Amino acid sequence: MVTQETSGLPEAPGAPANKAQALRALLRGPSPVRAVGAHDGLSAKLVQQAGFEAVWASSFEISASHGLPDASLVTMTQYLDAATAMDAVTDVPVIADCDTGFGGPMNVAYAVKRYARIGIAAMCIEDKLFPKINSFAADGQDLLPAEDFALKIKTGKEAQPDPDMLLIARTEALIAGAGMEEALDRGRLYAAAGADAVLVHSKSRRPDEVLEFASRWDVDVPLVAVPTTYDSVTEDELYQAGYRVVIYANQGLRAAVRGAQEVLRELNTAGNARAVGERIAPMSEVFALQGMPSDYRTKP
Amino acid sequence: MVTQETSGLPEAPGAPANKAQALRALLRGPSPVRAVGAHDGLSAKLVQQAGFEAVWASSFEISASHGLPDASLVTMTQYLDAATAMDAVTDVPVIADCDTGFGGPMNVAYAVKRYARIGIAAMCIEDKLFPKINSFAADGQDLLPAEDFALKIKTGKEAQPDPDMLLIARTEALIAGAGMEEALDRGRLYAAAGADAVLVHSKSRRPDEVLEFASRWDVDVPLVAVPTTYDSVTEDELYQAGYRVVIYANQGLRAAVRGAQEVLRELNTAGNARAVGERIAPMSEVFALQGMPSDYRTKP
Amino acid sequence: MVTQETSGLPEAPGAPANKAQALRALLRGPSPVRAVGAHDGLSAKLVQQAGFEAVWASSFEISASHGLPDASLVTMTQYLDAATAMDAVTDVPVIADCDTGFGGPMNVAYAVKRYARIGIAAMCIEDKLFPKINSFAADGQDLLPAEDFALKIKTGKEAQPDPDMLLIARTEALIAGAGMEEALDRGRLYAAAGADAVLVHSKSRRPDEVLEFASRWDVDVPLVAVPTTYDSVTEDELYQAGYRVVIYANQGLRAAVRGAQEVLRELNTAGNARAVGERIAPMSEVFALQGMPSDYRTKP
Amino acid sequence: MVTQETSGLPEAPGAPANKAQALRALLRGPSPVRAVGAHDGLSAKLVQQAGFEAVWASSFEISASHGLPDASLVTMTQYLDAATAMDAVTDVPVIADCDTGFGGPMNVAYAVKRYARIGIAAMCIEDKLFPKINSFAADGQDLLPAEDFALKIKTGKEAQPDPDMLLIARTEALIAGAGMEEALDRGRLYAAAGADAVLVHSKSRRPDEVLEFASRWDVDVPLVAVPTTYDSVTEDELYQAGYRVVIYANQGLRAAVRGAQEVLRELNTAGNARAVGERIAPMSEVFALQGMPSDYRTKP
Repeated sequence: MVTQETSGLPEAPGAPANKAQALRALLRGPSPVRAVGAHDGLSAKLVQQAGFEAVWASSFEISASHGLPDASLVTMTQYLDAATAMDAVTDVPVIADCDTGFGGPMNVAYAVKRYARIGIAAMCIEDKLFPKINSFAADGQDLLPAEDFALKIKTGKEAQPDPDMLLIARTEALIAGAGMEEALDRGRLYAAAGADAVLVHSKSRRPDEVLEFASRWDVDVPLVAVPTTYDSVTEDELYQAGYRVVIYANQGLRAAVRGAQEVLRELNTAGNARAVGERIAPMSEVFALQGMPSDYRTKP
Repeated sequence: MVTQETSGLPEAPGAPANKAQALRALLRGPSPVRAVGAHDGLSAKLVQQAGFEAVWASSFEISASHGLPDASLVTMTQYLDAATAMDAVTDVPVIADCDTGFGGPMNVAYAVKRYARIGIAAMCIEDKLFPKINSFAADGQDLLPAEDFALKIKTGKEAQPDPDMLLIARTEALIAGAGMEEALDRGRLYAAAGADAVLVHSKSRRPDEVLEFASRWDVDVPLVAVPTTYDSVTEDELYQAGYRVVIYANQGLRAAVRGAQEVLRELNTAGNARAVGERIAPMSEVFALQGMPSDYRTKP
Repeated sequence: MVTQETSGLPEAPGAPANKAQALRALLRGPSPVRAVGAHDGLSAKLVQQAGFEAVWASSFEISASHGLPDASLVTMTQYLDAATAMDAVTDVPVIADCDTGFGGPMNVAYAVKRYARIGIAAMCIEDKLFPKINSFAADGQDLLPAEDFALKIKTGKEAQPDPDMLLIARTEALIAGAGMEEALDRGRLYAAAGADAVLVHSKSRRPDEVLEFASRWDVDVPLVAVPTTYDSVTEDELYQAGYRVVIYANQGLRAAVRGAQEVLRELNTAGNARAVGERIAPMSEVFALQGMPSDYRTKP
Repeated sequence: MVTQETSGLPEAPGAPANKAQALRALLRGPSPVRAVGAHDGLSAKLVQQAGFEAVWASSFEISASHGLPDASLVTMTQYLDAATAMDAVTDVPVIADCDTGFGGPMNVAYAVKRYARIGIAAMCIEDKLFPKINSFAADGQDLLPAEDFALKIKTGKEAQPDPDMLLIARTEALIAGAGMEEALDRGRLYAAAGADAVLVHSKSRRPDEVLEFASRWDVDVPLVAVPTTYDSVTEDELYQAGYRVVIYANQGLRAAVRGAQEVLRELNTAGNARAVGERIAPMSEVFALQGMPSDYRTKP
């Protein structure tokens, strides 16, 4: 049981603007930017530790971490606090999943100011009605009229205090069953409204939809994919097709849940903690992750 | 990818006072109350799902979840929010690990009022100096004078709006190397000051310390053990020795960390999500945990 | 500059349920329940100090206190925190102005659980579209279909953990220019859906609208009025007409703003603080309001 | 009752770093920087509106606004939220009153990172023991050893991500009755540890103490005064004596309290709102302060 060689507190990751610029640079790079879902500071650190380029501050994961459905119950200030915690303890850019933007254009503008101020690299908003429900729920996938969502994008970009932060427009047209033409039309409209990237979501079991979308994409705005259901597709395939960001939206939380479930079940029946000792991270490893100081200046 | 049969929102767990009364009843039961560490609503649900009797709202876990050292950086209001989230989505009592009580007696009194009001079943405070550091850190294990801590307990109990909530006094005398006599003296003093239970912490690799403590305990106040380092001891051994609560303080988080690390490492090299699909909880299982509704009343 | 005879911490106002029951008792009393707007613990204490029966946790005041427009930018958790602070330091019931209920029926249900749990006596939600804007703004006064709002009321009442808390339905039909018949129809529908009281809002300069509404009200559910623009009407007149609650929604904040503006202007030109010393509350008075302790138990 | 010509949302006040630089520039100016206490966004706006150069995010005011004693009960995250709200809606620098720094050196370092990140221009910490009580309370004015506080300053400055933000060291030596020599020694030690300014607090009814302190100050670090009790002294006298910042720490809140008390008392007896209509700010004025939009983009 030892303390660490670490400096004791998360290092400040440079000036906030730098992470947005860093993400913009990555988007121009020779390989896909891979963002992985997280819901708190620790899970974000694990994403960085595993070698990924960015953190996806997932509204699904954050809702689940509260024990709440992914249905616009968690508030903007709670999402902002979670994204801030993730950003403060990592060096990689954080892309904040902001659902529908928390209301109308004015809510988007307000959120943009707050997220930009704290130094979040990118925000992503989607074109469903508020309150939204998770895209993989069977029901309730209703789209906002395209022009209304374009106004959200436009208002959000105008509200930005400096040009660095990215605003990603996510269309749920395929999720809602509105078809490929609608998805493409919306993507183009959002790009024209100022979106820095376009995310096209699909719940197909195969990558056919996202590959077709990319093949027909004719705007100089980068594309983002979230291969949750069409999970056989590789990062390289998506990159070759034109995607610049690949988001593994929730695998980290789902792995943590499975890991905890198995160990807790074993612990429950074993009747002592040693039974699970080999299957859990040692205290020293968690200490290292949380930056437990060796030089302990606390008094008082 | 389906929605659930659940009602869609966490059920309110009866009147808040009931959980404190429920914990008091469990303490009189024929087997140990086993509390397992959690840090958010989801991890608390997993503890309940695995069959344990109580949730330990661990300051170590909550600090780690923020990516911060366990060193009095996370604030009382953040701890309270975390405990509230855990309590709201579970049916079992939550025991809130409140470090040193967030300052002096007045801070304890204030915290007692806030935790009691929200319906938390029990608070636990410890007799180290504020700011404290994790008990397994090599340095900085300084004790508050016993009388000063007894005053915290007394002030806390006096501040309680109703008598249900338990205030657990935790002595770090053995952690600080102050010896068994000091530990026993402190335990007795805290019980006399009104503590509803006494937790004696030990970082011995064997249960010798806690077993001796229990064998010499001569006060009619229940004992609490945290077998983190002396992990070979069984719940039954502790119960036979006199312990009424056994806290597995952090195994859930450590399992989640290990689970996430392994999957993220694999995901990073595999280049697609299917590679890890068998090792993570399915979306439907997380949906069930978070209570995703089947009857989705959201419009507008 | 002296400390106080107070006990040092806000007294817990009895069991949470009591305030809801107290408000229900007041509604059956021989005079109107007068609630005055507040935005934080201090302003709520001033309302109680002045002799009023209840506190109105005003969304307009809370938004303004953040320096933000009253346009659904402040989040549910922020509103809840503000109402909690008000409730914790007063003995009178708090009626929480919850705008449109923070989204759809599910958001209402979730809010009801959280507000009830903390012991808030009553919540009030209104039948405008989310995001809403202040009722006195020139534009944007759009009504939700009546059936949709009735579903919010019904869902909210079903979600309540115990029957004490009141859910007040506020119709903006007159604000939106939809006419008296629509206002009455909506009031009746909301009462049938389970509303514990009905608030009819009006921006007329005279009380004609609210008096007509009351004269035609034929349901055994109490009425609530907010005489902001029709400010000549007396509490007695409203009570005689049938109103059981009269809300002075924002006069406290507006008085505080005027008081601060005048003193700050004077301070700015005077060049020293003594110039304003006679016009501000002495430190000792603020100490008393905040419960500064004479018996100061803080060490360590 | 009209909406405003304002743009509808608080303007972002340039890059965060600018406010710290702006404050540094003001310190080199030909007149004192006058900071006035505030506790939320609205009160901060009133300070700016009245023509002052800076906002003092007062821990006394913020505690009082919660209805809580000024005794280290309000948490760092709550103080940070309040300072953030003030900063977001003003153009002038915010100086955050951070009590004792929320614990030991590690707490200071953590707070510095969080305040700097959000763009707060300056933090002020004082050399009393944690938990502290208000300097005008009769009891509990205990000093931290000077070297321990110097370590807080040093640790805080080392933790700063960039050099702009100011860290002000406040000595309570005169408050604690430790004498002028001690006050001067402490001031020098803190300056040597890296403090960007030194605040010497005094509860004398006359400015004799602060004038003597300034006359004997022999370090090239600017001085700060808080003329609460010695309120006859003018800004010019303090500036001539060597003070670069004059803090009117709480007059705004005390004026608001007095203003609200008088109006609420009148309202309580009058029985209608018109009786106080002339003595309160009109709705349109509050709308302007909170930036109520004329171009209301909210749908949906």
